[in-house]
Amino acid sequence: MRTIHINSAIQSYDIVIGEKLRHQIKDYLPKNYSSILVITDENVVYLYGNDLLQALKGNKVFLEVVPPGETSKSIQVYYQLLTKALEYSLDRQSLIIAFGGGVVGDLAGFVAATYMRGVDYIQVPTTILAHDSSVGGKVAINHEKGKNLIGSFYPPVQVLYDTETIQTLSLQDVRSGYAELLKEAMLANENFFTQLLSISLEQIAMKDLITALETGINIKATIVEQDEREAGIRKYLNLGHTLGHAIETRLGYGKISHGEAVAIGILFAMYVSQQELQVKLPLKQVKEWLTENNYPIALSFEQIDDLVEFMMHDKKVINSEIQMVLLKKIGEPVLHNINKQQIKKYLHSFIMSEVKG
Amino acid sequence: MRTIHINSAIQSYDIVIGEKLRHQIKDYLPKNYSSILVITDENVVYLYGNDLLQALKGNKVFLEVVPPGETSKSIQVYYQLLTKALEYSLDRQSLIIAFGGGVVGDLAGFVAATYMRGVDYIQVPTTILAHDSSVGGKVAINHEKGKNLIGSFYPPVQVLYDTETIQTLSLQDVRSGYAELLKEAMLANENFFTQLLSISLEQIAMKDLITALETGINIKATIVEQDEREAGIRKYLNLGHTLGHAIETRLGYGKISHGEAVAIGILFAMYVSQQELQVKLPLKQVKEWLTENNYPIALSFEQIDDLVEFMMHDKKVINSEIQMVLLKKIGEPVLHNINKQQIKKYLHSFIMSEVKG
Repeated sequence: MRTIHINSAIQSYDIVIGEKLRHQIKDYLPKNYSSILVITDENVVYLYGNDLLQALKGNKVFLEVVPPGETSKSIQVYYQLLTKALEYSLDRQSLIIAFGGGVVGDLAGFVAATYMRGVDYIQVPTTILAHDSSVGGKVAINHEKGKNLIGSFYPPVQVLYDTETIQTLSLQDVRSGYAELLKEAMLANENFFTQLLSISLEQIAMKDLITALETGINIKATIVEQDEREAGIRKYLNLGHTLGHAIETRLGYGKISHGEAVAIGILFAMYVSQQELQVKLPLKQVKEWLTENNYPIALSFEQIDDLVEFMMHDKKVINSEIQMVLLKKIGEPVLHNINKQQIKKYLHSFIMSEVKG
Repeated sequence: MRTIHINSAIQSYDIVIGEKLRHQIKDYLPKNYSSILVITDENVVYLYGNDLLQALKGNKVFLEVVPPGETSKSIQVYYQLLTKALEYSLDRQSLIIAFGGGVVGDLAGFVAATYMRGVDYIQVPTTILAHDSSVGGKVAINHEKGKNLIGSFYPPVQVLYDTETIQTLSLQDVRSGYAELLKEAMLANENFFTQLLSISLEQIAMKDLITALETGINIKATIVEQDEREAGIRKYLNLGHTLGHAIETRLGYGKISHGEAVAIGILFAMYVSQQELQVKLPLKQVKEWLTENNYPIALSFEQIDDLVEFMMHDKKVINSEIQMVLLKKIGEPVLHNINKQQIKKYLHSFIMSEVKG
């Protein structure tokens, strides 16, 4: 078991990582709550729902299950959950538990942030990907015009990472999570980056996965402690995400996993970095690793116009310019503004280079 | 012109009170914004819309007008405003201006709090009532089950109070605003309370109104500075509001003004205080003043069950008990938990005493 403490200006909290933590959740409740609402999805409730409910026995507990996947991060599901919370008479001394992957964490977190102007919530992530979203207090739902456009900065009171729950993940989910680990490695730790590229996701040992997870969380924690509200260096964590979000929105949520979309975004960011900053990056190696591990990385020319439109509605746009995270080298990110025309040109030549191989 | 500074843990800001401030808004923008969205209602835009737009010339400005009244604080109008903000390409360096009364302030404030996880906003209140809602950073929309149940603590970057705009208020709006001033006086300032009871709202001089407004803002500012997130003494500001909100929800938003409903709530809180705390309060004088100034104060027996149900969904309910603000004496509020059955009994005997006069 391992504990990482996050100092937050809004509220400090611990991330506890260990096996079987879902059974011990009672020991980690920071205080007595008048009632508890567990929000989870259909997959997680089937696998681990009973464990958590058993572990919470003795409390007044309610359960809400949403369909798995990004489509649950809608204004409709958000409002339904608020209605349920009212029907269950949750009050300001109640707790919400987000039990699931990034979708459940973002959605339940935004419910907690805005129900009666804010109640406590605990993140109990069950995916590798959620190591990223459960740390740092970003919560949000989607707007039809783009991802995570409605949300808050609202840290949890606790993150409980039960490493047993990630053993049931599909290979696609492992891929999705590893894209964020790759991103963190590229931002801050060249050794970690080299290590990652030597891994085959189909054969990874659980011990190595957990070590990678802890390294990723530490990188993320160090960044968000310094810049909780994303005024400066936290923006680096958006590496690969401007194009990534656009791909998710363009293809329709659920058609491609978040991490798979981000992986394409990372490649594109490396490509643009080489052009704009005149540097040489290990683009070929990253692409090979993604291909070997079956990340879908093809984009097509006819998607370009839509992708650019979605990118223009991203949170990273300032004064109609896209603020992209580029890399001078591994471990040295920079922010760089690029206008719409230029992005279009780069997307075109990026896809062309993919086609040519 | 007068400036009151609010120290907030989240963000400090100034409340500037003065004549014709709407014409000078450009001087009060704390920085350059990439674009500005003014959110207002149909009444305010008709009277003062041009003034504000003229004063903002040179900026990229968009205008959204909502219907006046509490029904605009709905999830639908909230989502429409977010959609408009996206269509206008508002980014994280954009500003929202809430130009209107409490409804516009709460609604536009919640849009600002959650659009791309938060953008700056300025409150430009145009009613007496909004002296209360524009200070302290509480923003919210309504749920069909109750008022202000979805929201955040999210302070503005500036409050600009143009005292000229309150000169066009209807007598009902003046009544509505004075109920909150009465509340503030009862919580913190016996002299102010005595003064208020000597005023006739139909004949009040603008100079006296502005002085009262400043006194009220000072009381509120002192309280919210000490307890921004309503963990302690800020709860006192809910005097009269538990029943007040229930009356508004029961009658349907717009049927009675917020302040008129709060006035009945204040009377009820005084009545319960006398019973529960065995004290003697100037209930008769307050009731006389409200009657003389044409506040509608009649409740009927058949409303009791509904009112109690709405009170049970209030934010002030903890562990199924209603946390009421009572008064030991003028200037000395206390919190007191009362259960559902007891509230029902008190409502019954309160209405009975009203009927008997």
